[in-house]
Amino acid sequence: MTKVIKKIGVMTSGGDSPGMNAAIRSVVRSCAYHDIECIGIYRGFQGMIEGDFITMNARSVKGIINKGGTILKSARSKGFRTKEGREEAHKQLIKAGVDALVVIGGDGSFNGAMVFNKEFNFPVMGIPGTIDNDIVGTTHTLGYDTALNTIVEVIDKIRDTASSHNRLFFVEVMGRDVGHIALNVGIGAGAEEILIPEEDLGLDRLVESLRRSKKSGKSSSIVVVAEGDKTGKNVFELKDYVEANMTEYEVRVSVLGHMQRGGAPSCFDRVLASRMGVKAVESFLEGKSNYMVGLKNDIIDLTPFDQAVKGKSKINMELIRVSDIMTT
Amino acid sequence: MTKVIKKIGVMTSGGDSPGMNAAIRSVVRSCAYHDIECIGIYRGFQGMIEGDFITMNARSVKGIINKGGTILKSARSKGFRTKEGREEAHKQLIKAGVDALVVIGGDGSFNGAMVFNKEFNFPVMGIPGTIDNDIVGTTHTLGYDTALNTIVEVIDKIRDTASSHNRLFFVEVMGRDVGHIALNVGIGAGAEEILIPEEDLGLDRLVESLRRSKKSGKSSSIVVVAEGDKTGKNVFELKDYVEANMTEYEVRVSVLGHMQRGGAPSCFDRVLASRMGVKAVESFLEGKSNYMVGLKNDIIDLTPFDQAVKGKSKINMELIRVSDIMTT
Amino acid sequence: MTKVIKKIGVMTSGGDSPGMNAAIRSVVRSCAYHDIECIGIYRGFQGMIEGDFITMNARSVKGIINKGGTILKSARSKGFRTKEGREEAHKQLIKAGVDALVVIGGDGSFNGAMVFNKEFNFPVMGIPGTIDNDIVGTTHTLGYDTALNTIVEVIDKIRDTASSHNRLFFVEVMGRDVGHIALNVGIGAGAEEILIPEEDLGLDRLVESLRRSKKSGKSSSIVVVAEGDKTGKNVFELKDYVEANMTEYEVRVSVLGHMQRGGAPSCFDRVLASRMGVKAVESFLEGKSNYMVGLKNDIIDLTPFDQAVKGKSKINMELIRVSDIMTT
Amino acid sequence: MTKVIKKIGVMTSGGDSPGMNAAIRSVVRSCAYHDIECIGIYRGFQGMIEGDFITMNARSVKGIINKGGTILKSARSKGFRTKEGREEAHKQLIKAGVDALVVIGGDGSFNGAMVFNKEFNFPVMGIPGTIDNDIVGTTHTLGYDTALNTIVEVIDKIRDTASSHNRLFFVEVMGRDVGHIALNVGIGAGAEEILIPEEDLGLDRLVESLRRSKKSGKSSSIVVVAEGDKTGKNVFELKDYVEANMTEYEVRVSVLGHMQRGGAPSCFDRVLASRMGVKAVESFLEGKSNYMVGLKNDIIDLTPFDQAVKGKSKINMELIRVSDIMTT
Repeated sequence: MTKVIKKIGVMTSGGDSPGMNAAIRSVVRSCAYHDIECIGIYRGFQGMIEGDFITMNARSVKGIINKGGTILKSARSKGFRTKEGREEAHKQLIKAGVDALVVIGGDGSFNGAMVFNKEFNFPVMGIPGTIDNDIVGTTHTLGYDTALNTIVEVIDKIRDTASSHNRLFFVEVMGRDVGHIALNVGIGAGAEEILIPEEDLGLDRLVESLRRSKKSGKSSSIVVVAEGDKTGKNVFELKDYVEANMTEYEVRVSVLGHMQRGGAPSCFDRVLASRMGVKAVESFLEGKSNYMVGLKNDIIDLTPFDQAVKGKSKINMELIRVSDIMTT
Repeated sequence: MTKVIKKIGVMTSGGDSPGMNAAIRSVVRSCAYHDIECIGIYRGFQGMIEGDFITMNARSVKGIINKGGTILKSARSKGFRTKEGREEAHKQLIKAGVDALVVIGGDGSFNGAMVFNKEFNFPVMGIPGTIDNDIVGTTHTLGYDTALNTIVEVIDKIRDTASSHNRLFFVEVMGRDVGHIALNVGIGAGAEEILIPEEDLGLDRLVESLRRSKKSGKSSSIVVVAEGDKTGKNVFELKDYVEANMTEYEVRVSVLGHMQRGGAPSCFDRVLASRMGVKAVESFLEGKSNYMVGLKNDIIDLTPFDQAVKGKSKINMELIRVSDIMTT
Repeated sequence: MTKVIKKIGVMTSGGDSPGMNAAIRSVVRSCAYHDIECIGIYRGFQGMIEGDFITMNARSVKGIINKGGTILKSARSKGFRTKEGREEAHKQLIKAGVDALVVIGGDGSFNGAMVFNKEFNFPVMGIPGTIDNDIVGTTHTLGYDTALNTIVEVIDKIRDTASSHNRLFFVEVMGRDVGHIALNVGIGAGAEEILIPEEDLGLDRLVESLRRSKKSGKSSSIVVVAEGDKTGKNVFELKDYVEANMTEYEVRVSVLGHMQRGGAPSCFDRVLASRMGVKAVESFLEGKSNYMVGLKNDIIDLTPFDQAVKGKSKINMELIRVSDIMTT
Repeated sequence: MTKVIKKIGVMTSGGDSPGMNAAIRSVVRSCAYHDIECIGIYRGFQGMIEGDFITMNARSVKGIINKGGTILKSARSKGFRTKEGREEAHKQLIKAGVDALVVIGGDGSFNGAMVFNKEFNFPVMGIPGTIDNDIVGTTHTLGYDTALNTIVEVIDKIRDTASSHNRLFFVEVMGRDVGHIALNVGIGAGAEEILIPEEDLGLDRLVESLRRSKKSGKSSSIVVVAEGDKTGKNVFELKDYVEANMTEYEVRVSVLGHMQRGGAPSCFDRVLASRMGVKAVESFLEGKSNYMVGLKNDIIDLTPFDQAVKGKSKINMELIRVSDIMTT
């Protein structure tokens, strides 16, 4: 692992998130600063297998810090799950003279990177890029802050129409495994109820709470629902259930979908991406490998990959309490 | 009809749209300017039947010009469709001393106003408020311009993730009867195809066109679909059809839904609302009744209600040509 | 003028405005649609003199419809004001095989294009791109609608802080010669007063009006001032004058400056740009030259250059009345 | 200090910031949750002296979580700096039955609260509300995150026009004493240089760096300047200096001004405000007083007032390094 790093490869992998471009830019510019060469790998592990590379310098990343998505594209790769695929990928890196690899993505991508590191003793470093904020070892993943803002702005708009018509809206937001997004946008948008994967309020209590809310004079209600909420019902089923059990509201559903992933990154995500890119490159220069860069207590730090991929980060129970208090 | 107008009532009716508050504000301030009293009627015709009124002056409408939704709320009224309901509504207006009525809403609401005018010879004036822009007699309805901006911004975000993953998205936008929204946001967002109620491209041609687009090197595709598009298939069925007939793309669906109605009005809608409110009030003062205020050739003008409610406004065929040229 | 057009050059000139990129895209794609070659000319007339050209096809303009600024850059050219400069520019076009020229810019740029046309009988066509909306022959210039939205959003923010502190703000917006921007954003942002180049309210009346406004219970006031307002005082002098003559308000100043030019174009500007680009290219194919493309009564039409550059477009006097009524 | 708290007063003081309304809402709802009465105090300490109070309940704070500014207004109070003023204020609180006071504001306001606490042994609690983020004891003040986003969005727009014209812009942002804002928006907006109160690059080095940047092929440059930057020159003087010492750029200036304070709060600020309001109220219930609520390591915690008002929070030196690396 003490080999001299002269060329670094960078890729984005898994679902895209705002800030990935800012992270690519940071990796590229950090390389330039340290006189290290840099190549971009298109379409994640799949592009690695195919040798779909591009030489990058400071100019290649001009004007991308505020762009959503990823200029290096992302893709799933079945091939990389096979030993043969990974061997091919390794050959491509060697052929291109790449000494170390920065993977910007989620825990699935980090698992791939870990296996790759183990098999070929190849230096890897991870930057957490996903709007879900579900990764252990960082309080914030890239794109999470932006997504929260995107979503509250949309729910603010839905509130306009909800309160004009005294309606109840079920709004589905991302979060298959963890409720970070739902909990924060729920508080931020002043939602009357928040349904998350970690807790089950129970449908009866939901109806009761909505009834109480209506009685207290509220003209509209927003219920934020994480994709993977614990009730096991999706937003359309929730609508049916509520309509069957209470007549106080007209009920509507809104599934926010993929727009939650896009858009210009927030200032926070741009700065975080810039910091993480520097740390990833400089950690290689210090001879480190197999870590994820993360934000802990506002400091950029490293977490061993095997810890980062163990489980999902926990929601802050204080927020559940705050939410309860805000909606009484 | 030559009775002196001393008190005007204003209501919002039908689906809410951005700019309705700016129009209420304008009606109220125009009344104040002409020393006419003004009352707000809550929840459209239903509130009229119930006598749910509020006295309004210049201060009542402070700080609302940039707020989405409607502070007077909106609702459907079964009661107003009955003779008895309308008689009750008329009594309430008389009791409150209201001499004339401004209805901000769509063609359904204008139909109600016309009947009311006919039955009681009550002065009415309409202001077209709907994001659909489907009303004859005005080139722009209130909220339409805002909705176009809201939607292109969302599709820009979807494009970020679509092009990061080489995906095809079907994006459903509002427009049950007319394709104004779909056509304009389709051009504005650079969509590869636009499906509207007025024209049927045919599903085979759609697939063919998408295939050509992919071949020409496009990394992602957006197909904008109006709710009432002529294919008769909704976005989910379109997804299934395309997936069954071509393998070039991963396909995703996004139904934008009610967020399209909300948000702060654009400058255009705020100014338009201000102009329309003045015209509505001053037309009463000139002894006019039973008209809709509209924008024609950039001039604020009147259209008799019976013309305004006949049919739906036509799309601009030039735009279809422009769209075709932009996507080759 | 009946020569066959096989290659079209496109440039942006003068101050940049949102929608210029969408117009470039439209010209390029319209060329592609009609199997005409297209080259982009960098930095306006200066780049023409220097032969700073780039071949453009449908792919060159991918992903720019929603980008502010201009990918072809813009610059002033002293050289083009000389006969020698224009001869050099003409040689460069001939050398590159360019048969016709689309100039996206303001009236200064159109004057240059007219002279060029006269001297070399070279086909030229103009697309009005400026946020000022001061050009005769079109109700809307490219970027104007976007700038109105940008500005009202900023003034909405200033209003937040103004009303929290009961302050009076003078907000300077663009408009050296005409008051279109000031008048529309003034109405749209609910300004208490609007100062424009076309009218002089008089400073005494301004103070009187602000005093009345304060008495009527307003907690804050916004005065929108066009750069070239008729009082002859800039916003800082206005502040001093008001502070010297009334003590009711704390006064602050905000000069919005260049941010007004930037940002993603509104849907309206994107669609308008797309329509104008098609018209410019197809007008050449019909053997026309020396026209500006414009929007008149919602229809895309041509205006002879010599008419377009005569004087500045007039403000709508109805809006002054609406503004007066809204602020009583 | 162990007196039972039955009624809490809440005020906003000093410069307004986004999130103040969300904090008021949280204090009010936390009171409701704990069956404590709540009154709002208008215009900070000045309104306290004047007894300008309003009873607040859950309904009073409906629909304000996403509103900029402060519904309770803010003002400076000369009176409160005098013993007599504070005695009058104390009488007013006693008369209104208020047992404890939440002050939302900056360190100046906290100083006032401390003195008040000392003189009358009156329970006080502070919530840091200022966009400057200059307060010790919290990593984030309310409004800071929102302001960062507001500013980078504006600089993104300035960049559009800067790069269209190959210009250099000096952009002045808030920050009289600390460079938090300048440093973060500078990194976030990809600025070429950042001038802050804490460090003096030196004007020669600035010119040299801009020259190098130009040589490396950059088409535009943004220099972010904090109000109180160490060079001692304001943006207009910097413009003059650079123009006198280098001819490579056209130079422009933009002073962002008060718009930086306004706008809907970000999701982060809404959630932070909600958490802080709960903590302030519940800390009173635990018998605590004379603390500021703050965010430390992502946990809501208390800092004694006397520590919070000592000095200004330090900038993160890591960010200066990141900025240097990003701009090479």
